[in-house]
Amino acid sequence: MLTQSGCLARRQRLWARTPERFEWLLVADPRHVYYLSNFLVNPLSFSAGERGLLLLERNGEVTLLADNFTRRSAAGQPYVDQEIIQPWYDHQHSVINRDHALLNAVKSISERLYGRVGAVEAEWMPLAAWEIMGLDHEIHTLRQRGSGTCDTIDLGSLLRELRRSKQPDEIDLLLECMRAGAAGLLRAREVVRHGISEWDVYREMHAAVLETAGRPAQIYGDFRATNATTPKAGGPPTGHVLQSGDMLILDYSVVLDGYRSDFTNTLCVGDPSEAQQLLLSLCTAAMAHGTSVLKTGAAARDVHRATMKVFEEAGYGQFFPHHAGHGLGLGHPEPPILVPLSDDVLLTGDVVTLEPGLYVPGVGGIRIEHNYQITETGSICLSQHEIGL
Amino acid sequence: MLTQSGCLARRQRLWARTPERFEWLLVADPRHVYYLSNFLVNPLSFSAGERGLLLLERNGEVTLLADNFTRRSAAGQPYVDQEIIQPWYDHQHSVINRDHALLNAVKSISERLYGRVGAVEAEWMPLAAWEIMGLDHEIHTLRQRGSGTCDTIDLGSLLRELRRSKQPDEIDLLLECMRAGAAGLLRAREVVRHGISEWDVYREMHAAVLETAGRPAQIYGDFRATNATTPKAGGPPTGHVLQSGDMLILDYSVVLDGYRSDFTNTLCVGDPSEAQQLLLSLCTAAMAHGTSVLKTGAAARDVHRATMKVFEEAGYGQFFPHHAGHGLGLGHPEPPILVPLSDDVLLTGDVVTLEPGLYVPGVGGIRIEHNYQITETGSICLSQHEIGL
Repeated sequence: MLTQSGCLARRQRLWARTPERFEWLLVADPRHVYYLSNFLVNPLSFSAGERGLLLLERNGEVTLLADNFTRRSAAGQPYVDQEIIQPWYDHQHSVINRDHALLNAVKSISERLYGRVGAVEAEWMPLAAWEIMGLDHEIHTLRQRGSGTCDTIDLGSLLRELRRSKQPDEIDLLLECMRAGAAGLLRAREVVRHGISEWDVYREMHAAVLETAGRPAQIYGDFRATNATTPKAGGPPTGHVLQSGDMLILDYSVVLDGYRSDFTNTLCVGDPSEAQQLLLSLCTAAMAHGTSVLKTGAAARDVHRATMKVFEEAGYGQFFPHHAGHGLGLGHPEPPILVPLSDDVLLTGDVVTLEPGLYVPGVGGIRIEHNYQITETGSICLSQHEIGL
Repeated sequence: MLTQSGCLARRQRLWARTPERFEWLLVADPRHVYYLSNFLVNPLSFSAGERGLLLLERNGEVTLLADNFTRRSAAGQPYVDQEIIQPWYDHQHSVINRDHALLNAVKSISERLYGRVGAVEAEWMPLAAWEIMGLDHEIHTLRQRGSGTCDTIDLGSLLRELRRSKQPDEIDLLLECMRAGAAGLLRAREVVRHGISEWDVYREMHAAVLETAGRPAQIYGDFRATNATTPKAGGPPTGHVLQSGDMLILDYSVVLDGYRSDFTNTLCVGDPSEAQQLLLSLCTAAMAHGTSVLKTGAAARDVHRATMKVFEEAGYGQFFPHHAGHGLGLGHPEPPILVPLSDDVLLTGDVVTLEPGLYVPGVGGIRIEHNYQITETGSICLSQHEIGL
């Protein structure tokens, strides 16, 4: 889970970017509620998909609003000053609409906010909750892209900007995801052979991830075989039985407490051919070249260019159709986006993934991937899995 | 996944309960978007937590609104007439706020709805999406509890009411969840012994569930040991190492395509004592007595009363502190709620769970549970797992 000091630091950064006139902020995206308070509805609980709201006031006070059953499903301790928890279900009376409890919690803060300038996160604020508050001095915009220099605020975009530079508690969670993910790749290396299905490989990997994570986790990504005739495939595992010559792309995320790793290795079924080995050496070189550009202040497009350059010089540029990578954290993909026309510039504390890949008819598909934290002088490779066919 | 005919039947039921004057409905709760269209963002995908919106028009036309990456993460084929899919990420340009794509999709239907009476699902409708539409004849209420007899509509509550009577495609999904869940309980019976931890039992069960489900699944619930000093415990598994005399309560849900089973067995570590066997026989009798009341038209409170009666007559009433059960489907808990002061009446097609339990200091805790479909003449037990210590 996130730490109290991490939550405090993130709130301070938010207020530092919020125009002076705003006295309160009401955060509604569940990812942002969690980011700022450590209140995460356990996605593996009966309340998955339910929500709380978070009120922040300029004096530093933070209030969580939720129904009692959603509160009970918190994955960890929320770091807030006040909780307005509306009773919903009591094992005595019938209930139907759980959202009404959340709305009643929101209604109870209406007087407190009336007459004071503030803003809601309009992309996720439920219309009903906004109406029930009957506010008079609420101001938000959706088109300022995180501006803090004018008199309005686009809270959703600002929070996405702030999410880029990770705090230590976020890095710790990402590392935990990566350790568990690496265990899955290690297991895959042990079990992949001619005659085993994608689905069976997935189950082995899933078991290894859980064993290493030491707690329930979510896993998603690409667990698909490619080959000479189908060089590109993605998505959940199928019943396809691996054949000698297949290249199995294992590009997946382990999600723990909302944060996710995202890395890849490709395994050959049977001994790799020379053509397959060439693809790996090209990807390895492309990754090294892309990594050499990573540094605070670098243009995201230059990371893509550096990665692509290796492929182009070898005459393989046409087989690298996707991004060189992107930011990691609570969503996928996140900025910075490492693509040819990106406007992004790398920031200290960005965590990005680099994922060169080639999908070559007549040979097969390959992708390799590592995760890096951006520093003033370069980058730190956070993921520790073995790359190799 | 849900079927086309199931989605059509659910939409027809919705329109039959919608006052005549309403020409369109905009559905925003992701569960309801799925319920009516089979558009489910795969919860095990990189788009987990993202959303689409669903526009229904009285002529039967249905339109899905989403960003391109959310659409790509659909778990199955949406059954809609039109899709307004707003490009968000293209592997060429940087992006930051994915919600803006959804808002642009919504904006594009504004003219189509202007001047026509309709309603949004206000509990989940993002404020920004509602604003961007700039509607003039949108009318919703939050306090009519599904009314279809007056001039307003509380869409969220009405949909929750409609969700009670399951269609065949929903029953098929629930049965699939139950088959996978039963495999987990069977595996638990094989591995539970003195010296194994709750966590290790969970992992064995998880593997068995995946093996039987044949596809990725989510699992949550109670995997906790109870005993003479701690007769009640719930939640995810811990590292607690099972001891002879413990009673391991395994009350969990397997979620497939949003639907969930929810059933329980309790296993004794070592040979059950006479006191433990007595608890099982009381729960078995209570469940049988509760089941005997299940039938279309029965009062939900009478199901609780029938269950409690067995415990009270044995002098154990004080050890049964919770509901006798509740409805099952896309949420937890759902109506009908089987509690002492319930106002609910059982409907044909309700799927409910019955879960008598006793938590007795000096002995331990037990809970058993089965899932039933309500019929005109009684009930059908849908779950097939073995109950026994």
